[in-house]
Amino acid sequence: MADKVKIGLLGGGRIGKLHGANIQNSIPEAEIVVLADPFMNADMEAWAKSLGIPKCTSDPQEVFDNPEVDAVFICSSTNTHADFIIKAANAGKHIFCEKPIHTEIAKIKEAISVVEEKGVKLQVGFVRRFDKSHKKVHDVVASGDLGKPYVVKVCSRDPEAPPMDYVKVSGGIFMDMMIHDFDMVRYLAGSDVTEVSAVGTCLVDPRFADYDDVDTAIVTLKFENGAIGVIDNCRQAPYGYDQRVEVHCEKGCVQDANVLQNEAMVSTGAGVSTAKPTWFFLERYNDAFIQEEKEFVSSILNDTPTSVGAKDGLEPVRMAFAAGKSLREGRPVKLSEVE
Amino acid sequence: MADKVKIGLLGGGRIGKLHGANIQNSIPEAEIVVLADPFMNADMEAWAKSLGIPKCTSDPQEVFDNPEVDAVFICSSTNTHADFIIKAANAGKHIFCEKPIHTEIAKIKEAISVVEEKGVKLQVGFVRRFDKSHKKVHDVVASGDLGKPYVVKVCSRDPEAPPMDYVKVSGGIFMDMMIHDFDMVRYLAGSDVTEVSAVGTCLVDPRFADYDDVDTAIVTLKFENGAIGVIDNCRQAPYGYDQRVEVHCEKGCVQDANVLQNEAMVSTGAGVSTAKPTWFFLERYNDAFIQEEKEFVSSILNDTPTSVGAKDGLEPVRMAFAAGKSLREGRPVKLSEVE
Amino acid sequence: MADKVKIGLLGGGRIGKLHGANIQNSIPEAEIVVLADPFMNADMEAWAKSLGIPKCTSDPQEVFDNPEVDAVFICSSTNTHADFIIKAANAGKHIFCEKPIHTEIAKIKEAISVVEEKGVKLQVGFVRRFDKSHKKVHDVVASGDLGKPYVVKVCSRDPEAPPMDYVKVSGGIFMDMMIHDFDMVRYLAGSDVTEVSAVGTCLVDPRFADYDDVDTAIVTLKFENGAIGVIDNCRQAPYGYDQRVEVHCEKGCVQDANVLQNEAMVSTGAGVSTAKPTWFFLERYNDAFIQEEKEFVSSILNDTPTSVGAKDGLEPVRMAFAAGKSLREGRPVKLSEVE
Amino acid sequence: MADKVKIGLLGGGRIGKLHGANIQNSIPEAEIVVLADPFMNADMEAWAKSLGIPKCTSDPQEVFDNPEVDAVFICSSTNTHADFIIKAANAGKHIFCEKPIHTEIAKIKEAISVVEEKGVKLQVGFVRRFDKSHKKVHDVVASGDLGKPYVVKVCSRDPEAPPMDYVKVSGGIFMDMMIHDFDMVRYLAGSDVTEVSAVGTCLVDPRFADYDDVDTAIVTLKFENGAIGVIDNCRQAPYGYDQRVEVHCEKGCVQDANVLQNEAMVSTGAGVSTAKPTWFFLERYNDAFIQEEKEFVSSILNDTPTSVGAKDGLEPVRMAFAAGKSLREGRPVKLSEVE
Repeated sequence: MADKVKIGLLGGGRIGKLHGANIQNSIPEAEIVVLADPFMNADMEAWAKSLGIPKCTSDPQEVFDNPEVDAVFICSSTNTHADFIIKAANAGKHIFCEKPIHTEIAKIKEAISVVEEKGVKLQVGFVRRFDKSHKKVHDVVASGDLGKPYVVKVCSRDPEAPPMDYVKVSGGIFMDMMIHDFDMVRYLAGSDVTEVSAVGTCLVDPRFADYDDVDTAIVTLKFENGAIGVIDNCRQAPYGYDQRVEVHCEKGCVQDANVLQNEAMVSTGAGVSTAKPTWFFLERYNDAFIQEEKEFVSSILNDTPTSVGAKDGLEPVRMAFAAGKSLREGRPVKLSEVE
Repeated sequence: MADKVKIGLLGGGRIGKLHGANIQNSIPEAEIVVLADPFMNADMEAWAKSLGIPKCTSDPQEVFDNPEVDAVFICSSTNTHADFIIKAANAGKHIFCEKPIHTEIAKIKEAISVVEEKGVKLQVGFVRRFDKSHKKVHDVVASGDLGKPYVVKVCSRDPEAPPMDYVKVSGGIFMDMMIHDFDMVRYLAGSDVTEVSAVGTCLVDPRFADYDDVDTAIVTLKFENGAIGVIDNCRQAPYGYDQRVEVHCEKGCVQDANVLQNEAMVSTGAGVSTAKPTWFFLERYNDAFIQEEKEFVSSILNDTPTSVGAKDGLEPVRMAFAAGKSLREGRPVKLSEVE
Repeated sequence: MADKVKIGLLGGGRIGKLHGANIQNSIPEAEIVVLADPFMNADMEAWAKSLGIPKCTSDPQEVFDNPEVDAVFICSSTNTHADFIIKAANAGKHIFCEKPIHTEIAKIKEAISVVEEKGVKLQVGFVRRFDKSHKKVHDVVASGDLGKPYVVKVCSRDPEAPPMDYVKVSGGIFMDMMIHDFDMVRYLAGSDVTEVSAVGTCLVDPRFADYDDVDTAIVTLKFENGAIGVIDNCRQAPYGYDQRVEVHCEKGCVQDANVLQNEAMVSTGAGVSTAKPTWFFLERYNDAFIQEEKEFVSSILNDTPTSVGAKDGLEPVRMAFAAGKSLREGRPVKLSEVE
Repeated sequence: MADKVKIGLLGGGRIGKLHGANIQNSIPEAEIVVLADPFMNADMEAWAKSLGIPKCTSDPQEVFDNPEVDAVFICSSTNTHADFIIKAANAGKHIFCEKPIHTEIAKIKEAISVVEEKGVKLQVGFVRRFDKSHKKVHDVVASGDLGKPYVVKVCSRDPEAPPMDYVKVSGGIFMDMMIHDFDMVRYLAGSDVTEVSAVGTCLVDPRFADYDDVDTAIVTLKFENGAIGVIDNCRQAPYGYDQRVEVHCEKGCVQDANVLQNEAMVSTGAGVSTAKPTWFFLERYNDAFIQEEKEFVSSILNDTPTSVGAKDGLEPVRMAFAAGKSLREGRPVKLSEVE
C-alpha cells in the first residue's frame, strides 16, 4: 500500500457526504479515489469535484473491481450493506460499514463469515464510541479503577420525531434508534447482554402505533459479567439531543453530561439560564465521526484490529430483536432466544 | 385547640429524636408535651428535658389517654405503627406516622379505615417530597407547563450497605429502600402505577442473597396516565448519597442534581475536583424533615388535607410487594395482582 | 465555668434576634441568660420568653454587672460596639462583637488594647469565614497544596440596594459592604494588604452620589506575601446574592460557586434554566452564623484562640479607609497612610 | 470577483499554517492561490502542496503584484504587519491581519489611513470575538435585554509561561497577552476605555523582571459609557487555558465558563472530578478561527463591513501602552495620555 489509504465511497447521500468531506478535509492519511452511487447526477458530481474526488460512477461494481481501492466506506441504503460487505471482502478490500450491517441476523452472519475468511478489516459505524465524553466514561470503567461495574445506564432522546415516511421503513425504535445504545452499553460494560426486558408506549405521536412501533421505550438489561442496566429512549426532546451515559461501579460512578451549544449563562430576576444541548447528531458527534474515520484508516495503515468489529455489528441487532420480542410478549427475553 | 399543636411523641430512637428536636427548636407552632418509649431510661429523659419536653413515660397508652395531646408522631418500630394509628385515631388524635405504615397490606387498610372513620388527619413520613429540589421537579410537572409526562426516572443509592443484622429484618430492598422511590415516582408523575418489572442482583455483598435479598435493582414502571418510568437502586455508592430524579415530558425535561457538601472547585494539572454529595439522608434531607413537620402542623392548625395521605401510605407498599414478586417470578407484575 | 456558657445578649434587633434564636435552638453548649436593649418592649420580651431567655432589661449595664454572664454578644448599633467591648472586657466577659468594631481606627485600637490587657476573648462577626464553600477555598490555600497564592479575587453583589435612609448612615460602600470582602481576602490570602486602588461609580441609583457614595466599585490589592487581588462590588444584582471567591496559585486555582435555591434544572425548546442563587445573607449564611457561634462558644469552653480576632477587626476598617481615600484622590493608597 | 475569494497567504509559520489549512479545508468560498514566506523551504512547499496551494514564493511582493489575488492574510512577523497592510491596500487587496498591527501607534495610524484611503477591507485577528461562548455573552449585552452594563470582567490565564527567548521580544504582558482581553472588554462593553490602572508582579518566574515585564497583572478600566471593568492575567495555570468573561448589568449578569476537554465526571470516595479546560488557544479557539475566516470572506463576498475593523486594531494597543505606563508610574493613566 502507498502512504495513503485509497478509498472507494459507496453512497453519496447525507452520511456518505459526511464521511467523504471528512476524509478529504481532515484525514491526510486517506483519500477518496472513487464515488459510486446508483443515483449519480450532476449535483453529486459537482460535490465530488469540489472535494477533489477524481472519479464518479453509478455502478458500485466499479469500486470493487478497481485495483487502486484499498478500502470501501459503505454508506448506501441499509439493505445493500451486507451484499456490499461480501463483494468488498471477496475483492480484498477493507470495509467500513454504516450501521446496521443488515436487519436479518442470518445475513449479518453470512457477511461476517466472508470477512473472516478473506481476512479483511471490518469496522461498523457506531460513531458514539468515538465521542470524547462517552469514550472517557468507557476508559474509566475499562481501567478498572472503579472496580466491577454494577449498573450501566444510557439515556438517549432525539430532538424531534422523524417523518412518518421514515418511521414506516425504519425498522422500529429498537432497530433504528436504540441500536446505538445497545452498542453503547456493551462498550461501557465491557460485556455482552444476556437478557432484555422492554416497556414502550406511544406518547409523542399516535401514528407510531400504526406501524407497530413505539416512540418512548425503556429496556432493562442483564450482562454476562453480572451487571444490570437500563436504556431509555424518546423520539422527542424539544431542548435538543439528549445523550447521557452512566456506569455505577463498586468504587464509584462515572457519567457524562450533554454537550451544550455554548458555555454562557445568564442570571436575571427571572432565573438562571444556559444554552441548550447541541441540536442533533451532526453537531454532537461531528468530532466523533472524524475520530471514527481516523481510527479505521489507522487500523489499516498499522495493521491493527478495528475498534468496532464484526461481533459489535451483530450483537446490537440481536438485542434489538430481543427487545421487540419482549415488548410484544410482555416478558423478559433472553438473547439466546434470538438466532 | 390552643395556639400551639400539642404533640405526643411515640418513640425516642434516632428518628424520634430527629422529629423531637426539630419540633422543639424549629416549629414555634407546635410543642411536644409527652414522650413515650417502652425503653425509657435516664439518658432519654435527659434528652427530653434538655429540649423542654415536660413529661416522659414508658407506656404509649398514656399518650393516647392524655386529653392535652392534639396529635401524635409515631416513630416507634415498624410493627407497632398500624396499631398506634388505630389507637390514636380512636382517641381523636391527628397522626404523623413514619413509613411504612405496616408491611402487611390488610393491616394498612385496617388502620386507614379507622382513620377515615374517625376523621383525624394522617400524614405518612415520605420526607423526600419536602426536599426543595425534588419538590421543584414535582411542581414544574404539576404546573402542566411541560405538557404530559412521558418518562419518570429516579436514581437512589445509599453511601454504604447497612449491617447484615439490619438487612435480615429490613423487609428487603423494595420495602426498605426503594419504597421511598415508589412514593417519589407517584408524586412526580401525579399518577398511580399499574405494573412493575424488576431486575436485581447481589453485587455489593453476597450475603444479601442469604436473606433472599438483592443489593442492586432496577424496576420499570407503567403509570395509569400512560407514562412509563424506571427506578434504579444500589446499596453502595462510596461518593455519598445519590438522589436524582427526572421527568421527561412533552415539551421538555426537568431533573435535579445532587446536593454537594460545598460549592468549591479545585483545578490543578491533575484535574478539576469538586465536593462530593452530602453523605446520607440526615444531611441531605435535614431541611426536608423540618418542612415535613411544618406542613403537618399547618394542616392541623388550618384544617387542610395533609400532603401525604392514607393512599400514599398504602401504594408504595403494594408496589414493593409487586416488585418483589416480579423479581422472584421473572415477569412483569400488575399492581392488581397485589391485594 | 459551668458546663454551659452563659451569655448576655446586647441588642434585640434583627441581628441580635438571629444570634439569640441560633444560640437557644442550635448551640446546646450555651444559653442566653439576659437580653438588654434600650428599646426593650413587650414584643421583644415575648420573643425572649418564647426562646426561654429568662431576663430582659433596657439597661446594658445590667449585663456587664451580672456575675452569671460569661460572655456577651454585642449586636447593638455600631457606634456602641467599642464602648461595650471596653465595658465587657473590664467586667471580665468574653466578647463576640458584630462588625465593624467602630468606624474610627483610634477607637478600635483603644477597645482592642483593653481586651488584650484584660485577657478576655474577642471574636468579630465576619460570618462569611464560616461559610462551607468559602472555608473550603481558604483551607485548600492554607494547606499549601497549591503552592503560593498569586491572585485573590472576590465578587460580592447584593440583590438590591438598601433604602436611602440607610445609605445616608451606612458609612459608604467600602465600610458597609466591601468590609466583608476586605476581611475575606485577608482570610483567603493568609496575608495582610499593603496597598489598595479603587474605582467606583453610581450606576444603580444616582442618589448614592448625594451621600458621596458609589454603588459599584472595584478595588485592586497588593498583599504582603507578594500576591495581588481584586474585589468587585455592586449594590444591585436582581438574580440574588452573588458571592464568589477565587484564589489562583502556583499549582492551580480554587474557587467557589453561588449556592442555588435548589438543584432542579428545566430544559425546553426555549432554553435550559436553573434556580437562582439564594436571595440574601440570611439565606446564604444561615448555617455560617451557627458555625460562627459554635466556634466562639467552643473557644471559651476549650480556652483556645478565637478564629477571628482583634487584628481581623481592625484591618478591614483600615482597608475601607484606604479604599475611600484612593477613590477620592484617584491614586493607589498604601495602608501605611491610614492610621 | 469570481465565485471564490482568491487569497494570498503571507507567512507559513504556525499561525499561517492554521489559517491556510482552515481556508483550504473548511471555507469553500475561498482558496489560497499563493503562499509567500521569506523562509520558504521544501517542507513548507510540501505542506502547501498537500493542501492544494498551487504556488509558493519567498518574495511577498509577488503576492501584492498578483492580479489574481483578492485578499491577503498577513501572518508574518509582527514588525512586518503595518508595511504589508500598506502594500496590500495600495495594491487594492482586502486584508486580514493578525494582531497586533504594530507596536507603534503612529505606524498603526499610518497603515489605517492607507486602508481607508484605498477603501479596502481590513479585519484584525482578534479571534476570541468568534468564540461561541464569548460571542453569546456579547450578544446578550448588545441586545439590551439586561439594560446598561455596570461591570465588565475578563479572566485570562495561559497554561504555562512562554520560553524566555520569546518573553524577551514579546512586547510584555500587556502587548502580547492582555491585548486580547483589551479587545474583549471593548467588544463586551460596546464602549471604548478611557482610563486604566494596573498592578502587576513576578510570581511565576523571576526572570520576567529581567525584561521589565511581569507575569501576573490586574488592570481596572473605566469605559466611556460609564461602566467599570477589570482584567486579570497570569502566565501560568497548570490546569489549562482559563478564559472567562462576565458582564454585570442593570437587570442581570451574563458570564461564561471554560470549555472542558470532555463532559465526563467521576465520583468516588476521594471526591468528584471532571475534565480540565482545553489546554491552550489552538484547542479552545479552533472553531473560532474558522468562524473568523468565514466572516472575513463573507464580508468581501457581500461587501459588508468587517466585524473587527481598524479602530479595533488600534485601541487595544493604546490600552497596552497605557497599562504599561500605569504599572511603571503607579497611578491610573488616561487613554488620552497615549497618542
